[in-house]
Amino acid sequence: MTVTNLEQRYEIVRGLIDNENWNALEEVLSKLPPVEIVEILEKLEEKDLLVIFTLFPNKEKAQIFGELSRDLQYYLFKSLERRSFSKVFEAMRSDERADFYQELTVDEQSALLPYLNKQVRSNVVELSGYDADSAGGIMTTDFATARNWMTVRETVDKVKKDSPSKKMIYYVYVVDDEKVLLGFVTLKDLILAELDDKIEDLMIVDFVAAKVDEDREAVARRIEKYNLVALPILNEERKLMGIVRHDDAIEVIVAEQTEDMEKMMGITSSSDEDDDEGYMDISVFRHFKKRILWLISLAMIGIVSGLILHHFEDALDQMVILAMYMPMLADTGGNAGSQASTVVIRALSLGEVTTNDWWKITFKEMRIALLLSICLSSIAFLKVTLLSFDSSLPGELTLSYVAFIISLALALQVVTSTMIGAGLPLIVKKLKGDPAVVASPAITTIVDVTGLLIYFGLATAFLLNAIA
Amino acid sequence: MTVTNLEQRYEIVRGLIDNENWNALEEVLSKLPPVEIVEILEKLEEKDLLVIFTLFPNKEKAQIFGELSRDLQYYLFKSLERRSFSKVFEAMRSDERADFYQELTVDEQSALLPYLNKQVRSNVVELSGYDADSAGGIMTTDFATARNWMTVRETVDKVKKDSPSKKMIYYVYVVDDEKVLLGFVTLKDLILAELDDKIEDLMIVDFVAAKVDEDREAVARRIEKYNLVALPILNEERKLMGIVRHDDAIEVIVAEQTEDMEKMMGITSSSDEDDDEGYMDISVFRHFKKRILWLISLAMIGIVSGLILHHFEDALDQMVILAMYMPMLADTGGNAGSQASTVVIRALSLGEVTTNDWWKITFKEMRIALLLSICLSSIAFLKVTLLSFDSSLPGELTLSYVAFIISLALALQVVTSTMIGAGLPLIVKKLKGDPAVVASPAITTIVDVTGLLIYFGLATAFLLNAIA
Repeated sequence: MTVTNLEQRYEIVRGLIDNENWNALEEVLSKLPPVEIVEILEKLEEKDLLVIFTLFPNKEKAQIFGELSRDLQYYLFKSLERRSFSKVFEAMRSDERADFYQELTVDEQSALLPYLNKQVRSNVVELSGYDADSAGGIMTTDFATARNWMTVRETVDKVKKDSPSKKMIYYVYVVDDEKVLLGFVTLKDLILAELDDKIEDLMIVDFVAAKVDEDREAVARRIEKYNLVALPILNEERKLMGIVRHDDAIEVIVAEQTEDMEKMMGITSSSDEDDDEGYMDISVFRHFKKRILWLISLAMIGIVSGLILHHFEDALDQMVILAMYMPMLADTGGNAGSQASTVVIRALSLGEVTTNDWWKITFKEMRIALLLSICLSSIAFLKVTLLSFDSSLPGELTLSYVAFIISLALALQVVTSTMIGAGLPLIVKKLKGDPAVVASPAITTIVDVTGLLIYFGLATAFLLNAIA
Repeated sequence: MTVTNLEQRYEIVRGLIDNENWNALEEVLSKLPPVEIVEILEKLEEKDLLVIFTLFPNKEKAQIFGELSRDLQYYLFKSLERRSFSKVFEAMRSDERADFYQELTVDEQSALLPYLNKQVRSNVVELSGYDADSAGGIMTTDFATARNWMTVRETVDKVKKDSPSKKMIYYVYVVDDEKVLLGFVTLKDLILAELDDKIEDLMIVDFVAAKVDEDREAVARRIEKYNLVALPILNEERKLMGIVRHDDAIEVIVAEQTEDMEKMMGITSSSDEDDDEGYMDISVFRHFKKRILWLISLAMIGIVSGLILHHFEDALDQMVILAMYMPMLADTGGNAGSQASTVVIRALSLGEVTTNDWWKITFKEMRIALLLSICLSSIAFLKVTLLSFDSSLPGELTLSYVAFIISLALALQVVTSTMIGAGLPLIVKKLKGDPAVVASPAITTIVDVTGLLIYFGLATAFLLNAIA
C-alpha cells in the first residue's frame, strides 16, 4: 500500500539524485508502480529524467514510457540512442506503441522501423493504420489464444510460452485455423478445470464482441454494459484482430465525457488533434481556437436580438423600466433552458431515454416548467414592485400592472426556454447529430431572442397601447 | 456474438410467451447474458416477468435480479414466496444484495432476515451499514484469499472449494491469521507457476489499496489511475474487508460525472436520494426541486443587476442605444466565463491541475482572454456601426466613437469574465468546496454584474460626460 504521497516520494527521489546515490534510488523506484514513477519523472528536469530512465530494465522502461506525456516521450525518443530506444519500443503494450508511432513524422517513422524486429514492425504498421476513434485505434494485440481441440494442460503451456510475463491476461480466446473467434475461457475456469479437460467443453461460445471499425465510444459503452474485463475485436470475417481492455474503456469514457461537457459550453474539438491531452498540454492558441468559433457564432445570432431591440427602440424610449428588467428575463430563461438541455443531453448520452420517448420527455418538462414559472414569476413580481417603487410611469399605468405584465412575460419565458432546452437536443439527435452541441451558450442565445419577442410582444399589447 | 438487436430479441421472446412455448423460451434466454435478459424483461408486463423469472435456476435469477430496476426488484420481492426469494437473494453479488436490502423498510428487512443463512445474514447487515458514498458502500465481499505459506496447488484447491462458480475472480489476496492483507497473486501468475511454488515467492507485496471509509469517487479514480481490475478495501487495522471491481469504478465515474454536469448547470442533488436513478425514474416534483434552488438564488443575485440598472436609469433614458447592446455584452461575457470555468473545473476534477497551479492557469487564461477579446470586440464594433447607422445620437457624439466605447467595454468584459470563470472554481476548491457548483448559471449571473459596471462606467466617463 502506498504510505507516502507524491510530494514525499518526490523529495526522497530528489535527495537521492542530488547525492548521486543510484543504488538506493533504484531500490526505492523499483517498489513503485509505473504510474507513480511517471508522476515523479514529470516533476524532474529533463537531464535527470534521462539518467533515471536508464536505471530501469527494458520491460519497466516500456511501461514507464507508455505512461509519460507526449512531450517527454518525444524527448526520450530524441535523446536515447536509436538501438536502445528500439528495445524499449518493442517491449511496450501494442496499443501504446502504435499511439506513439502515429505521433512521429514520416521521416522519424522510417528511421525507427529498421531497428525493430519483423513482428513488432508489422504490428506497429498495422495498428497505426486504424482510425484513432475506432475500436482498432484503441485495441491491443497482446492477448492469449488457444485451439478448441486443446486440453487445459496444453493451453496453459501455450500461454506460458506465448505471453511475456509483464502483460496482463484475463481471458484465453479460442480461435480456429483462420483465426476466426470461436469462444473464450476465463483464467478462473482454466484454474478450476482438470488438466485433461478439453477447451471445447469449457469455452463460452455466446460472447459479446465489436467490429474493428466501430466507434470507440460504442466499444467502451459495451464493456461498461456487460461488465467486461476485455472485449474481443473482430474484422469482417470474424477473425480476432485484438482486444480492448477495461482500463482503455474507462479512458475513453472519461475523454468522451470531457468532450461532451466542452461541447455543451461551446468549446469545439477538432478530430485531428489529440482529445486526451490535459489542460496544461494544450497551447494558448489552441485553447483560443477551441473557444472562439462558438463565441463568434453566438455573437452573430445575437444580431437578431439586436435587430429586435432596434425595432423596439421607441418602446424602450417611452418606458425605461422595460430595459431594467430585460437582463432578469434573459438570464432566467437562459438558465432554465440550460438546465433542461443538460438533463436531456445526459439522459440521451447514457441511453436512459431515446428520441422515441420525445412525447414523454416533453410532457415531463412541461410540468416541471409550469412549477418553475409559478415560483419564479412570483419572485419577479415582488422584485419589480420593490425595486421600481420610485420609477416614473407614463400615462395611467400603475406599478402593479407593469409588474404583473413583466412577471407574466417571465413565466412564459421560463416555459418556452425549458421546452426549447429539452426539445433541441432531441431534434438534433433525431437528425443524427450530436445533441451535446445544442449546448448552454446556444440555448442562452436562442432563448434571448424568444425572450425579447415575448417581452416586447406583451409590453406592446398591454402597456404601450394603453399609453398611446 | 450478439447477432440480433433488442427489438428482434424482444419479438422472439414475445412470440414464445404468447404461444406458451416455455421450453423454447428457456433455450433462447439461456444463451443471452443477464443484462440482455433484463432489457427484455423490462419491456414485458409484470405478470409475464414473473413467469419468465421463475424459469431460471437460482444463480441466473440472482444475476438478473441484480441488474433489474429498483421498481421491478421490489415487485419480484413482493410477488415471490419469501423462501424462494431468499434463495435468489443468497446467490446475489454481495454489493448488489446490500444495495437492495438498504432500499427495504425496516419491517421488510426484519421479515427477510430469518430466511437467510447465517453467513449471508451477517454479511448483508455489515455491508448495508456502510455509507453508500464510501468504499464500503460499493465494495463486494466476493473475493478469494490464500495464505502466504500455501503452495500454488493448495491455493488452487482453496479457490475451487471457496468460490461459487459464477463469480468472477481476478486476484487471489494473501492474508495472515488476522485477515491483514499481505499481498496478492494474479490468476495468471498462478497458472504460469509450478504447482509446488510457494505463494510467498509469487505474491506482489507493493499493492495499492483504499480504506473502507474513503470517498467512492477517490476509490474509482485510483482504479482508473493504476489500471486495476479490482482494488482491495482495508479497515483501520489493514484487514481486508472487501474489493471494489473495475465495473463498479466505471459506474461511479459515470454517476459522478452526471452529478458534476448537473451541478455546473445549477441542478442540485440531495444526498438522501439515489443519484444513480435515470431521468425517467425521477418524478416531476423532484426534478423541479433539483432545479428551482439555483434559479431562485440567481434571480436574487439578479437584483444587484437590477439595482445597477436602476442607478443608470437616467443614462439609459438619454441614450437608448446603450440598452440595445446590453444583451450582447451580457451574453458574450456569460459564454466566455462559462467556457473558462468548464475547462478549469474539468481539469481540476481529472487531477490535471491543482490549486497550486493557480498562477499558471491564470496566466494561460489571461492570454486566451486577450485573443478572444480582440476578435470579439472587432466584431462588436462592426455590428454597432452596421445596425445602428440610423440611431439618433445626442450631442456631438459620432457613431464610430460610440461603437468604439461599446466594443472596448466588450473587450474588458470578455477578459473579466474569463478570469472570473477560471478563478472562482480555483477559489472554491481551495476553500475545500466542490468547484462544479460555480457553474455556468452562477458565472453568467455574476459576470452580468461586472458587465453592467464596466458598460455604464465607460459610458458615463466617455459618452454621457461628453453630452452633459
